[in-house]
Amino acid sequence: MRILAVETTATAASCCVTEDGRVCGRFAVNAGLTHSRTLLPMVEQTLAGCGLTPADIDLFAVAAGPGSFTGVRIGVAAVKGLALPADKPCAGVSTLAAMARLWEDIPMTATVCAVMDARCQQVYTALFAVADGAVTRQTPDEAISLEVLRSRLEAINGPVVLVGDGAALCAEAFADLPHVRLAPPALRMQDAVGVAREAAHVQPMPARELLPVYLRVPQAERELRARLAAEQGKQ
Amino acid sequence: MRILAVETTATAASCCVTEDGRVCGRFAVNAGLTHSRTLLPMVEQTLAGCGLTPADIDLFAVAAGPGSFTGVRIGVAAVKGLALPADKPCAGVSTLAAMARLWEDIPMTATVCAVMDARCQQVYTALFAVADGAVTRQTPDEAISLEVLRSRLEAINGPVVLVGDGAALCAEAFADLPHVRLAPPALRMQDAVGVAREAAHVQPMPARELLPVYLRVPQAERELRARLAAEQGKQ
Repeated sequence: MRILAVETTATAASCCVTEDGRVCGRFAVNAGLTHSRTLLPMVEQTLAGCGLTPADIDLFAVAAGPGSFTGVRIGVAAVKGLALPADKPCAGVSTLAAMARLWEDIPMTATVCAVMDARCQQVYTALFAVADGAVTRQTPDEAISLEVLRSRLEAINGPVVLVGDGAALCAEAFADLPHVRLAPPALRMQDAVGVAREAAHVQPMPARELLPVYLRVPQAERELRARLAAEQGKQ
Repeated sequence: MRILAVETTATAASCCVTEDGRVCGRFAVNAGLTHSRTLLPMVEQTLAGCGLTPADIDLFAVAAGPGSFTGVRIGVAAVKGLALPADKPCAGVSTLAAMARLWEDIPMTATVCAVMDARCQQVYTALFAVADGAVTRQTPDEAISLEVLRSRLEAINGPVVLVGDGAALCAEAFADLPHVRLAPPALRMQDAVGVAREAAHVQPMPARELLPVYLRVPQAERELRARLAAEQGKQ
């Protein structure tokens, strides 16, 4: 099966094509440029590099959240657009599970802490155990404070590897925890290769049913609710 | 320091830009297309994706061998061409060491066996120990038979991870060795990110001094020598 996967949940953007698990092409940039301008050219160039067109793809996968609201919407919208013309199936995967999936088949016994900067003094995070090459989820995707995450990591025996766009932030905040370390550069950021791999573990759906997964209410909606509550208070 | 790295030693081709170890952009294809046609557009698109030009690069790195003679020459020639106009420094690294470098900082205790299909019943290979996040070379880059490699892997205690374009071939040949396993897809093939990382460990040189590193005499030269020897025999 040929999968085209897309990752745009933070400042990095990436896409890849895999065929029966093998990586045929991958393209990633992490330079602070707007995904809405870079993503589709990247997809086009990756497909061209593989000698393929969207018609050759069997499944379109995307990191559907958590993540930057705008980033997630760009990725989901792009994948919907690519899949709709030929009514190809889509897979929306957890951003955090996709990061952990990159560690599958590595012969280590460790905890992978996938962590993203969620702003507002919070991180999006989930913990995964890696043992005998298998990845097992330990906690659900959550938006929690650094303090809560610290107490969880303190309780873990054995090495903890930090991955994701919040990893550097956490490595600094948890520098006093000797069992916690930053993942190497090639495995550190969210990447479409993990999305493609995780897609094999979720139920495909039609493009029209694919939706972003937000762990928190978007800021615009929070502000609207606050304004409505304040206006109600005045009446 | 900003590094542009290139990897074209086998059927996969890749390039990347790193800045002080962080991956800013990476592009890889493994679709059997000719590197001479795909490599420079990939470099151009990766630089564009990062908002950079060759003038912004401090060091040009390449996997200089072992590898396919044509592949290695394309990579070395491309890097020479990119570095010469502004007389920027270059780094030629071992293809096998670059693969092992991708495993640095992974909290595992294992042997990484970098292995490439060298045809003629041989593999290009080298062994690296990974422990406490550090990568230590165990054997030099060599061209040896699968039987010799098998006897070496049989003598190793602890898990062995196969990486490189010869990894799948070896995983099949050594399927009876339970401690030997194939690396996961994201870390399996030679990749420019490992080249960039390894480049920090070698002495830079001017572009005009950069040369391919062949472990064996090229086929054309072997055939020439054989013909000359045969002609001498006739005289």
